[in-house]
Amino acid sequence: MAADRNLRMHHGVVARADRERLLGQRGCVVWLTGLSGAGKSTIARALEARLFALGRLCSVLDGDNLRHGLCADLGFDAAARSENIRRAAHTAALFVDLGAIVVTAFVSPFRADREAARDLLGADMIEVHVDAPLAACEQRDPKGLYKKARAGQLADFTGVDSPYEPPADPDIRLRSADRTVDECVEQLLALLRARGAVPTTEAR
Amino acid sequence: MAADRNLRMHHGVVARADRERLLGQRGCVVWLTGLSGAGKSTIARALEARLFALGRLCSVLDGDNLRHGLCADLGFDAAARSENIRRAAHTAALFVDLGAIVVTAFVSPFRADREAARDLLGADMIEVHVDAPLAACEQRDPKGLYKKARAGQLADFTGVDSPYEPPADPDIRLRSADRTVDECVEQLLALLRARGAVPTTEAR
Repeated sequence: MAADRNLRMHHGVVARADRERLLGQRGCVVWLTGLSGAGKSTIARALEARLFALGRLCSVLDGDNLRHGLCADLGFDAAARSENIRRAAHTAALFVDLGAIVVTAFVSPFRADREAARDLLGADMIEVHVDAPLAACEQRDPKGLYKKARAGQLADFTGVDSPYEPPADPDIRLRSADRTVDECVEQLLALLRARGAVPTTEAR
Repeated sequence: MAADRNLRMHHGVVARADRERLLGQRGCVVWLTGLSGAGKSTIARALEARLFALGRLCSVLDGDNLRHGLCADLGFDAAARSENIRRAAHTAALFVDLGAIVVTAFVSPFRADREAARDLLGADMIEVHVDAPLAACEQRDPKGLYKKARAGQLADFTGVDSPYEPPADPDIRLRSADRTVDECVEQLLALLRARGAVPTTEAR
C-alpha cells in the first residue's frame, strides 16, 4: 500500500484513525433493515463487491455468518432475536474500530433494537430501510420461509405473525421492489461518498 | 493502495483471499494465553504497533473491548468464562475472514476452551503461551487483582483459586519474565513471517 510510508504512531498505540488512514476509508456500518425477501443480503453482497472493486475493505454480517457461529447458541424468540441484534451491533462496532465498512443484513424488525444499535454506533451507523411491500417479498419468498410461516411451521415470522416496525427516519430508503440491485448499490455508494466513508476521487 | 488495480472479483462474490490480497497479508489469530500479569495485553498492543508500522492491519481483542461490549452480559464463573472465550474465538474468525491479523489477549486458562478455538480456527490460530512464573506475575500485579484475590475479594481467580492449564504444545512460548516486550514482539513477528501472514520483504 502506497500510503504506508507516511504512517505515524501515537505513543505506540494504534488508533482507529490510523487504521482508517492505512485503508484509505472511514469505518462505518451500513445497517440494512427490512422484511425477509426484500433483498437485504443480495444488496449487501453486491455493495461489498462494488466497494472491493474500488479497493475498499468491507465485511458483510448476516444470519449466514452469525447464526452458525457467534450466535449459534441463540433461538428465535423475541429475547433471542434482540440478543442476536445486540451482538451484531457490538461486532459491527469492533469492525468499525478496525476501519472496515460493515454491511449488516438482518431483518432487525424492532425499533428498540435498532435504537440500541444507534446508541452504540452513533454517527457511524447508516440506517437503510430496504423497503419492499410485504406482498412482493412474499411472492419472491426466495427461501420458502413465508410459505412455511403461513403453514404454521415457523413461529414469530416477521410480516406474518410478528410485526415489522419500519424506521421512522432512516438515513436512506431503498425501494428494492422497483429498483435493480445495481441501482440500490449506487444509491448506497453515493451516500457513503457523501459521508466521507469512501473517497470521491476514484475513477471507477 | 497500489495493489488495487490488479484486483479481480470472482463472480461478484468477495472471498477472504481477495481481501488478503488487498491488504497484502494473511489473516490469522495470534492467541495469547497466560496468567494475569504475564504481559499479554502489553505484548498484544506492542505487536499491533509493530505490525501497523509495517503497514499491516491488526486488531487486538481483549477484556477491555469485549467485556464492556459483546460480552457485557457475561459474569466470571466457569461457564461464563468459557462463553466469553467462545465468543472471542468466533469474533476472531470473522476478523480473519476479513483478512485481519487478530491478537487475542485473554487468560484463557482452560485447555478445552482453547481446543474449541483451535477446532474453529484451525491453522489460522497461532497459540502463544505467555509463560511467566506465577510468583513474577503476582509480584507485578499491575491491576492489583492478585492482592484482591488473596484477600478473598475475587473468586475463581486464575493461579489463586482457579487452575491455569498450560498449553502442552503451543506454537511458541514467550518467557515474558526474562525477555523485554520488544524481544517478545520480534519473536512473534518472525513466526508471522515464517507462516506467511506478513511479507518477509519489508525493509523495516
